[in-house]
Amino acid sequence: MLESLKERVCAANLKLTEYGLVLFTWGNVSEIDRESGLFVIKPSGVDYAKLRPEDMVVMNLNGEKVEGELNPSSDTPTHLELYRRFPEIGGVAHTHSTFAVAFAQAAKDIELYGTTHADFSFGAVPCTRDLTAEEIENDYELNTGRVIAERFETGGIDYNAVPAVLVHSHGPFTWGKDGFEAAKNSAVLEEVAKMAYLSETLNAKPASENIRNKHYFRKHGANAYYGQK
Amino acid sequence: MLESLKERVCAANLKLTEYGLVLFTWGNVSEIDRESGLFVIKPSGVDYAKLRPEDMVVMNLNGEKVEGELNPSSDTPTHLELYRRFPEIGGVAHTHSTFAVAFAQAAKDIELYGTTHADFSFGAVPCTRDLTAEEIENDYELNTGRVIAERFETGGIDYNAVPAVLVHSHGPFTWGKDGFEAAKNSAVLEEVAKMAYLSETLNAKPASENIRNKHYFRKHGANAYYGQK
Amino acid sequence: MLESLKERVCAANLKLTEYGLVLFTWGNVSEIDRESGLFVIKPSGVDYAKLRPEDMVVMNLNGEKVEGELNPSSDTPTHLELYRRFPEIGGVAHTHSTFAVAFAQAAKDIELYGTTHADFSFGAVPCTRDLTAEEIENDYELNTGRVIAERFETGGIDYNAVPAVLVHSHGPFTWGKDGFEAAKNSAVLEEVAKMAYLSETLNAKPASENIRNKHYFRKHGANAYYGQK
Amino acid sequence: MLESLKERVCAANLKLTEYGLVLFTWGNVSEIDRESGLFVIKPSGVDYAKLRPEDMVVMNLNGEKVEGELNPSSDTPTHLELYRRFPEIGGVAHTHSTFAVAFAQAAKDIELYGTTHADFSFGAVPCTRDLTAEEIENDYELNTGRVIAERFETGGIDYNAVPAVLVHSHGPFTWGKDGFEAAKNSAVLEEVAKMAYLSETLNAKPASENIRNKHYFRKHGANAYYGQK
Repeated sequence: MLESLKERVCAANLKLTEYGLVLFTWGNVSEIDRESGLFVIKPSGVDYAKLRPEDMVVMNLNGEKVEGELNPSSDTPTHLELYRRFPEIGGVAHTHSTFAVAFAQAAKDIELYGTTHADFSFGAVPCTRDLTAEEIENDYELNTGRVIAERFETGGIDYNAVPAVLVHSHGPFTWGKDGFEAAKNSAVLEEVAKMAYLSETLNAKPASENIRNKHYFRKHGANAYYGQK
Repeated sequence: MLESLKERVCAANLKLTEYGLVLFTWGNVSEIDRESGLFVIKPSGVDYAKLRPEDMVVMNLNGEKVEGELNPSSDTPTHLELYRRFPEIGGVAHTHSTFAVAFAQAAKDIELYGTTHADFSFGAVPCTRDLTAEEIENDYELNTGRVIAERFETGGIDYNAVPAVLVHSHGPFTWGKDGFEAAKNSAVLEEVAKMAYLSETLNAKPASENIRNKHYFRKHGANAYYGQK
Repeated sequence: MLESLKERVCAANLKLTEYGLVLFTWGNVSEIDRESGLFVIKPSGVDYAKLRPEDMVVMNLNGEKVEGELNPSSDTPTHLELYRRFPEIGGVAHTHSTFAVAFAQAAKDIELYGTTHADFSFGAVPCTRDLTAEEIENDYELNTGRVIAERFETGGIDYNAVPAVLVHSHGPFTWGKDGFEAAKNSAVLEEVAKMAYLSETLNAKPASENIRNKHYFRKHGANAYYGQK
Repeated sequence: MLESLKERVCAANLKLTEYGLVLFTWGNVSEIDRESGLFVIKPSGVDYAKLRPEDMVVMNLNGEKVEGELNPSSDTPTHLELYRRFPEIGGVAHTHSTFAVAFAQAAKDIELYGTTHADFSFGAVPCTRDLTAEEIENDYELNTGRVIAERFETGGIDYNAVPAVLVHSHGPFTWGKDGFEAAKNSAVLEEVAKMAYLSETLNAKPASENIRNKHYFRKHGANAYYGQK
């Protein structure tokens, strides 16, 4: 079932290696078929060099495996929760890319220092709070999804306008309209994180809201004029 | 029209990827034919892997598209203003290269710390002031060109001797006698910016004017003796 | 003798270059055959590009060469001491990878700042004390192995759970069930060290013990659920 | 004349690109034939991709061109002075490699922080004083060689044991028994400089003299035991 979606998800996972974002088996991408409520995700701990569409795992939104011989990524419940809480997204990606992880480990939002960031995200990429001992002990990966959603809700952040988050002490999750956009957003986030690291160590101040608004809406929404029609 | 110029501009844009300066569709190079007053520029948001000479867009100095099916780069009015204000340049390049962006985001000039910089530019690479809310709201890209020219004029900086600028909260623009030299200057600027970043974090002081003069005039101008005749 | 082990050790050494961890002839990997008490190690100062299985050197645990025309790595006595003191390991790797060396030169443990580290090691990667003048003068490489073992014993650190160490003023040694796992751990350590460097310069605090325990035991031990059965 | 030396020097120059040490036409390597007192050097400002043995320039120790159609590297008088003042060296290399330049621009010696450095150099890599206005105005490149030699003489540093220097506000020169060793030393110096940068920003202290002596003499001199006979 969902053979073409499996091919897409396999290819989107391979984008993570093409973008230089993963070592060994780290990272994973999923994409959901909103009509059937099923999503397809990378199997856990499998080498990218050996990844085949038929290895992909099909899950439903109750967290049950619907098809696939392999175990799904151990981060699957986080993807699941993001699909439930962010109903307009179509794909999710998770990496341990170096500079994004550094901000996650430092428990710092990635502030919007300039137009590269604003072309990508309408404001800072937020970092979640640390999980409690209990949240870690039971349903850790599900709770990871919950604290991400909590961070957007309590912060009044629109997940459609800010397509990325840092999980405290862990690393980034990104999303988009499909798995490819989610993977691409992981690549852009890493570059934005590197620029932010360098900018902070040069004592930068965040960019103005005017710059943020101009560049975000130059590329996104009804009045965008970047690119081709 | 201008078929050979389109080929040159397409090739100069591809240099940006060869030099490792761009992710995805970021960045753009243009070159002007001063005789006809027309310039050729990359289309907006097109993948470098798919870029063909026939995709290039021909513009006049009033900002009107003269030929081309695609939209020109959204940064076209900045290129245009640079061609108007800097009458001796023949090509312009724009990138979001990492270290140059970091200085732009930190709103800092790149000071001249040594001979690598002096071989390239007669003094610091200046950073513009931030645009006002009004300058951002209306004719943003044109005003970006204006604040660049303003920075050189009020600072008494010779654009022929300093072939690069940082736009506040944004990133670098470079120029040269043609599109290839503009692109090459983007690559040199990025390396100079990286060296400056490392030097500043090691508490360097700018190099002496004697070093600046010696190296700049060793390579540029009537008494240059670097390279072959 | 041990022809297949020589092939494995040659291939594991070449992994160091594939992982981008070595310049020139730097670094070495060994693997032990616990049944015979013999281990196989890279020869000293030989180019990776020319390394052949038949160049590998066979040593016994008394430090005597049993087979091989070339001199073994000058770090052989350190490998030997690690095999004696850490009886459950099967392979050892040594590199001068850049960020791990920086921590070793700064005489700092690599603190556990997040889940990338915890997936790999149950706690900080410790740095040894400096060797005394006498320990350096006589049996330097053997004493290097001794201060590593001392660091784990006096610190109450389980070498099975922390598969890496930094030698003061020198660099990392890693180990695992065989030479390939030892080499892979060198690659993971370097990435973890880079992330720690960036995190420290962003003023990070170490991650909680809960995060450490969760991620370590998600991947290691009887209750691990990462990967496939 | 000296055809085989021209081939060697051409190949040694290409090593600089293989090692990732140069952008565009930057950098140069020379090698001397001590018997005839002639040395061969890269022409000025020629692309590495187009460099051919017959383009190499033959110079004598009076600074006169003996053979070659192209202008020699503008740094030729520095190479010349090094051959005169350091009579036991056979090759010289100059690059603008990033981290070594950063230390030169910060006017800082590269302290010996660990064994990677000590395997290469018996102590800190010194940085020269700044040249005076007069030294820059007249015979700049020759005076660059003079301040290098002065730094070693007044500092009591043995150029055979410390095969590299940083020129203030400029960058590194390295040397060795021939052009290939000089080029290799440029690569090692860059890695050592990167490690030193990271170590300093982690607040490292220089390594002990015992470590310096042990590692230097493990690899160099009569009692060396690294590598093969």
